[in-house]
Amino acid sequence: MTERRLGQNGIVQPLLTDLYQITMAYAYWKSGKTKDYSVFDLFFRKNPFQGEFTIFAGLEECLKFLEKFHYSISDIEYLKQTLPSNIEEEFYEFLSSVSAKDVTLYAIAEGSVAFPRVPLMRVEGPLIIVQLLETTLLTLVNYASLMATNAARYRMAAGNMKLFEFGLRRAQGPDGGLSASKYSYIGGFDGTSNVLAGKLFNIPVKGTHAHAYITSFNGFTDLRNTKLEPKAGGEPRDLLQLALAWRTDLVPIFKVVASEASDGEMAALISFAIAFPDGFMALVDTYDVKRSGLLNFCSVALALNELGYRAVGIRLDSGDLAYLSNVARQFFSEISEKYNIPWFQDLMIMASNDINEETILSLNEQGHKINCFGIGTHLVTCQRQPALGCVYKLVELNDQPRIKLSQDVAKVTLPGRKDAYRLYSESGHALVDLLQRSDESPPAINEKVLCRHPFIESKRAYVIPSRVEKLLTVYWKDGAICQMLPDLQQIKEGVQTSLKTLRPDIKRNLNPTPFKVAVSDCLYTFLHNLWLENAPIGELS
Amino acid sequence: MTERRLGQNGIVQPLLTDLYQITMAYAYWKSGKTKDYSVFDLFFRKNPFQGEFTIFAGLEECLKFLEKFHYSISDIEYLKQTLPSNIEEEFYEFLSSVSAKDVTLYAIAEGSVAFPRVPLMRVEGPLIIVQLLETTLLTLVNYASLMATNAARYRMAAGNMKLFEFGLRRAQGPDGGLSASKYSYIGGFDGTSNVLAGKLFNIPVKGTHAHAYITSFNGFTDLRNTKLEPKAGGEPRDLLQLALAWRTDLVPIFKVVASEASDGEMAALISFAIAFPDGFMALVDTYDVKRSGLLNFCSVALALNELGYRAVGIRLDSGDLAYLSNVARQFFSEISEKYNIPWFQDLMIMASNDINEETILSLNEQGHKINCFGIGTHLVTCQRQPALGCVYKLVELNDQPRIKLSQDVAKVTLPGRKDAYRLYSESGHALVDLLQRSDESPPAINEKVLCRHPFIESKRAYVIPSRVEKLLTVYWKDGAICQMLPDLQQIKEGVQTSLKTLRPDIKRNLNPTPFKVAVSDCLYTFLHNLWLENAPIGELS
Repeated sequence: MTERRLGQNGIVQPLLTDLYQITMAYAYWKSGKTKDYSVFDLFFRKNPFQGEFTIFAGLEECLKFLEKFHYSISDIEYLKQTLPSNIEEEFYEFLSSVSAKDVTLYAIAEGSVAFPRVPLMRVEGPLIIVQLLETTLLTLVNYASLMATNAARYRMAAGNMKLFEFGLRRAQGPDGGLSASKYSYIGGFDGTSNVLAGKLFNIPVKGTHAHAYITSFNGFTDLRNTKLEPKAGGEPRDLLQLALAWRTDLVPIFKVVASEASDGEMAALISFAIAFPDGFMALVDTYDVKRSGLLNFCSVALALNELGYRAVGIRLDSGDLAYLSNVARQFFSEISEKYNIPWFQDLMIMASNDINEETILSLNEQGHKINCFGIGTHLVTCQRQPALGCVYKLVELNDQPRIKLSQDVAKVTLPGRKDAYRLYSESGHALVDLLQRSDESPPAINEKVLCRHPFIESKRAYVIPSRVEKLLTVYWKDGAICQMLPDLQQIKEGVQTSLKTLRPDIKRNLNPTPFKVAVSDCLYTFLHNLWLENAPIGELS
Repeated sequence: MTERRLGQNGIVQPLLTDLYQITMAYAYWKSGKTKDYSVFDLFFRKNPFQGEFTIFAGLEECLKFLEKFHYSISDIEYLKQTLPSNIEEEFYEFLSSVSAKDVTLYAIAEGSVAFPRVPLMRVEGPLIIVQLLETTLLTLVNYASLMATNAARYRMAAGNMKLFEFGLRRAQGPDGGLSASKYSYIGGFDGTSNVLAGKLFNIPVKGTHAHAYITSFNGFTDLRNTKLEPKAGGEPRDLLQLALAWRTDLVPIFKVVASEASDGEMAALISFAIAFPDGFMALVDTYDVKRSGLLNFCSVALALNELGYRAVGIRLDSGDLAYLSNVARQFFSEISEKYNIPWFQDLMIMASNDINEETILSLNEQGHKINCFGIGTHLVTCQRQPALGCVYKLVELNDQPRIKLSQDVAKVTLPGRKDAYRLYSESGHALVDLLQRSDESPPAINEKVLCRHPFIESKRAYVIPSRVEKLLTVYWKDGAICQMLPDLQQIKEGVQTSLKTLRPDIKRNLNPTPFKVAVSDCLYTFLHNLWLENAPIGELS
């Protein structure tokens, strides 16, 4: 638990909310509604990124928020200064005493695939308290789920390639960056450049050097030390002299004049190789990839090889990545063959310039030899859709269903306390998510279940599930977390397991098939009766 | 100073950085480059949102970061576990001892308009230290400036209308939300719904109620109290009975059947009005704006008026905002006239559904009667461009200029230590930002200055400034902040003052004119000589 508690940002606190939650609390309190019992659903209406699935994330943060949900003396003081002066003193006493102990929170598993209208969470308890939780829960779920989903999509596009998150500098400030690192790891990334994320969440961190490192060396005279001890020990040798000899040797392969290669760049690579002889990875596009960067890198890598060290690879941060990666791989192969160094052809080629899901798919089509991506801006800002529209809707109050109508049918809420089930085929594929009223019996294995479209009467189908998964289970009750929470690694594995249950056509990038979300016959009838009761009859004019 | 320190997020710390900063630090240290003296420029290459200006923000956060720049024992422990085991122990001793005391930071004023390639900051000092600051400084400036710029654009589109930031639930997590509140206020917003932002930064907070409040009342029987004391004191009266009488009275104006209006909605508004009789603002689109929400609101507002209270207004959260605002204003005017209540026609109409800069401009064209916007998702995610691409480039090392070349001319850096000046016309308009080498004398008032395009030889112009502003001034030196920092309110006013110096065609939404950024003749020659020296001569093949 220590690691987990370390991870929560101190600014996640009850005042991290919209003011209207507190004005509503007062109005409820003033109306004597302190004992009203409510049920809220937290859900989204549309999958992000023109896709047909979402990864649910942020649950653990929500539970940690519930654990410490309490207004401090300074919070109350601030509210007294801010709210109208007519607010009764006893309300502040009430507010000082609130906690989440009477709240019950059900959720689907963190890392599970999720679909529109199926509650990610169902939060029950005293109306005032459950309403006060709204904004913070949404804040903690919206970006976490969006980010995990985005990362999962990149993971699918990238196949077995390594993926690293490099977005801290372009995120929405410090915590945006930290959340991006955490939830992209959950979604399928292999690590991050963000050191604090590594420290707090135990995520692998990765990084070599920037262009500034290369440009900070002007030539060989900037090198105060050029000696490196061989890996097996013994007399240090002059890495620069070895590399320069290799640079001359390599001219026939590279078909360039050795003097065209930048000496400043070579000096920078030598110094970096001396610092990290076992982790030598070089940025090769500072001056010219083909005429300078690759030649210098290969020279240093071969010099290191003479001393018993294996270089890791190169990073390309500009230019035509498909083309340059093919060029680099070709050189690596020729060198591998000519000098009989088998691993040389498998050197890592990392690309890191403005990568997004489409770039990866397009590179795949063009043919490339990249085996690792470093991804920043487009990953962390979720460029294609920068927000997930989760909402938090009252569906039941004091055992009475509540419905929010809208001229836009897609925005009509599904009333009442509901359970959600995922029905699976014999082959293990998810067939449908089924919402039922909570007092209905769960769908039974190998029995016919009528699944209805929530709004279109004629859309109905029978499903015979081979497996039934109850999606919403209780995570918070009587003031405490009441399930063992998975660690980050387990959530990360859960994402891939969950994605495997979806048919490929649901997951594809272009025109994916929507996954079906249905309601039971009982919920269908209940919904439509309530709708008719509440909708005013219009008049055309 | 207390308020300021309170505001910084605890996760802003030296490890909030990319790992490569630390691997580079080791490689520099290992190469004996601890005394190397560097100059870095922090700048962007392109204004965001297809616009031609940017508001610089985040400076104060950067300075606070410098104040506490220090690796803790636990940071060092983590790095020891994470970096390769061959790293020498003395490096960690060195890292434990670093601070920002030998760093000097120059910046333009927080809240000033800024343009591509003009450094927002120039950071000087020991190469290792200044390099270690990169990622965190970029993180603190990028989103802050993007957000302030976005807010400033909304402010221009909205003219005198009130603007409130409502985006916490859709931001990049907790801190994304908090930064959004702070920097949208700086950029020109009037307040936020985010209570913690209000508490930490002393920003006005705003909010009434959500749809859930309305739907939590089913009818009049849910009201445990309907009595309200008149503002002037005296016997409490039954607000519900008064409002119901008004609802019947208003039928001829609204041309609806009173029974069509939702009693649940009316009950909710009554309870809210009793809680906030002086701040009654109602969400009117839960059931039907025209047939229910407006009628109920006006009835309650008129009942409050009988007791001496003035209602504030309504909020529209769905539907055709231009049309509905005109309908609402028309009703308010008719009531104002019929019952001789002058202020009634000026009730606030707030709109809050999916608003962005374009929506506001389009509403302006259609004609509307909204006087306040609540803006969430599109504001905080900066939908049109979710990241500002600030970069941090080495421009000088040990008095030697450094240049980063690129096949893309726009990405070539301007080498050397530079100063920046803004030249103004007699009328007070900014004419050009001029970059010079630091050893040149500043441009003189009323004297001819040659301003050159940095890359195109033929583009030159003489400018005779009536006023010259030195843009980069020193904010951090010898381990301390060395200028009085403006408070949030002053920065906010500075934004508007600074924007006023720009010609309208530079600020317009559609096809704005680029503001000119020039280099001195001396810097032009210096840049191009260095470029030729460093660029390899290509070979067409």
